[in-house]
Amino acid sequence: MPLAMIQDELMPLEAVPIPFRDRAMYFGDGVYEVIRSYKGHIFALEDHLMRFANSLEAVDIRGITVETVRQRVLTAFDQAGIGNAKIYFHVTRGSGPRDPVEAPGLAPNFYLTITELEDATLEKTQGISVITHPDLRWKRCDIKSLNLLPNVLAKREAHKQGCDEAILVDDQGLITEGSASAFFAICGDSSAQGDWPGLCLRTTALHVNILPSVTRKYVIKSAQAIGLTVVERSVAVPEAKAAQELFLAVTTRDIVPIVKFDGQSIGQGKPGKATQALMQAFQQCIDED
Amino acid sequence: MPLAMIQDELMPLEAVPIPFRDRAMYFGDGVYEVIRSYKGHIFALEDHLMRFANSLEAVDIRGITVETVRQRVLTAFDQAGIGNAKIYFHVTRGSGPRDPVEAPGLAPNFYLTITELEDATLEKTQGISVITHPDLRWKRCDIKSLNLLPNVLAKREAHKQGCDEAILVDDQGLITEGSASAFFAICGDSSAQGDWPGLCLRTTALHVNILPSVTRKYVIKSAQAIGLTVVERSVAVPEAKAAQELFLAVTTRDIVPIVKFDGQSIGQGKPGKATQALMQAFQQCIDED
Repeated sequence: MPLAMIQDELMPLEAVPIPFRDRAMYFGDGVYEVIRSYKGHIFALEDHLMRFANSLEAVDIRGITVETVRQRVLTAFDQAGIGNAKIYFHVTRGSGPRDPVEAPGLAPNFYLTITELEDATLEKTQGISVITHPDLRWKRCDIKSLNLLPNVLAKREAHKQGCDEAILVDDQGLITEGSASAFFAICGDSSAQGDWPGLCLRTTALHVNILPSVTRKYVIKSAQAIGLTVVERSVAVPEAKAAQELFLAVTTRDIVPIVKFDGQSIGQGKPGKATQALMQAFQQCIDED
Repeated sequence: MPLAMIQDELMPLEAVPIPFRDRAMYFGDGVYEVIRSYKGHIFALEDHLMRFANSLEAVDIRGITVETVRQRVLTAFDQAGIGNAKIYFHVTRGSGPRDPVEAPGLAPNFYLTITELEDATLEKTQGISVITHPDLRWKRCDIKSLNLLPNVLAKREAHKQGCDEAILVDDQGLITEGSASAFFAICGDSSAQGDWPGLCLRTTALHVNILPSVTRKYVIKSAQAIGLTVVERSVAVPEAKAAQELFLAVTTRDIVPIVKFDGQSIGQGKPGKATQALMQAFQQCIDED
């Protein structure tokens, strides 16, 4: 007789609770988003929904519309009544037997949580430490999928070393992005003029090897607002170590200064002037959203 | 108030069924095995358990011993009473909040299913068709992890094209392995002597880019038993098309001849002599296990 066992408990296969048959559990066969609100207003909702639509399309999950997702997000957000909320949701290809090829017409599963964001004042004012770690991820990191084991392993390694984030480095020694964040450097650039002469903001160009970060988009908008030249070209590890300032960008904490990189102090070991100016400009983006 | 939503149903966060908080669901943070029995005897159990131990170690999941897993597998197998059984099991890092870094001392989760194997006589006697597909997976395919989205996408594409399996090809145009199988070619080899003069068995060497397939190990043993030279060197796509014979190896069906490769007939469009000899020798391995 077909059986299942959960921990050490045997049961008939048909008695297995449905979530154990979710394709997220077997294959990580789903895509997700993380959105946040500031003081009761969801930031950049349409950007996140558009990216989510792209992720669904890229993995060919059908049977749920972005309009449905939007309504569910808004309903949950409204009901939760949390001002600074973290909204996580994923859609998986559905539940069924463990077969890479799903049954025709399988209905996707939706799952959402909404929680209070942790306060990030300390990290944002004092800055964080990071390590570098080989980028072991797959070749479609532009898809925000549930296959996050390499990210988990990198972030766990960072924490073991007392650091906040792992900055991923590809085979060519170039930084792609953080395990759960976008990466930015304020570098010397002799050709840069304007309000920040001799400086530019460097970050990886959008390609299949990084996530099209929503926060990245608003960081670039912020840079333009303060007159800081933006150069979309990957930062090599030695360039990062020699940078004037470093920071990462992530939905839940927007801009977070990096003050230590692989054990080496960056700038004066405290958040730099350009990073602080970008944080102010980013606040403007939030206020205008 | 923290909330969750499953499909369109809102609930307090603490009412979410535990499996939704499994790190397999959020991150694919777990490792798995598939084992089979032939006529009431589990084949190559120790090989699978040793590989599973390696997978657990590689992703640093602790708190469960291989001895516990062995006992659970044997208990379930005994209770199920299925002669030709497919035994699937996975261990995940545990259940908790969605944080890449788990709480200290988190207990891992075990999940197993045991079902009747589908009959594979048709595929094994007539052969199957395959397509090639870019290998988009991560850089640690030697770990049998639950991050299987690229495998799912490749296999779905094969099925869309009426084929049984997707053979993965790396950036250099070399075949790594199938989306859920090991890959083998019988190629011309002027230096090969013995019982199969002028022929050799080619397959990818064990490295981080492929799974150390248990069935592969017994295919190689079978080749040695019939006096067929084994060359562990990746097969390029044109070499595969020009091969005398092709086949794949997978736990659930052991050796399966490939008779069509990217639409091109292989050999005489039917299982070849060397493949058939290997299938017989493999049966010997099963009988002796």
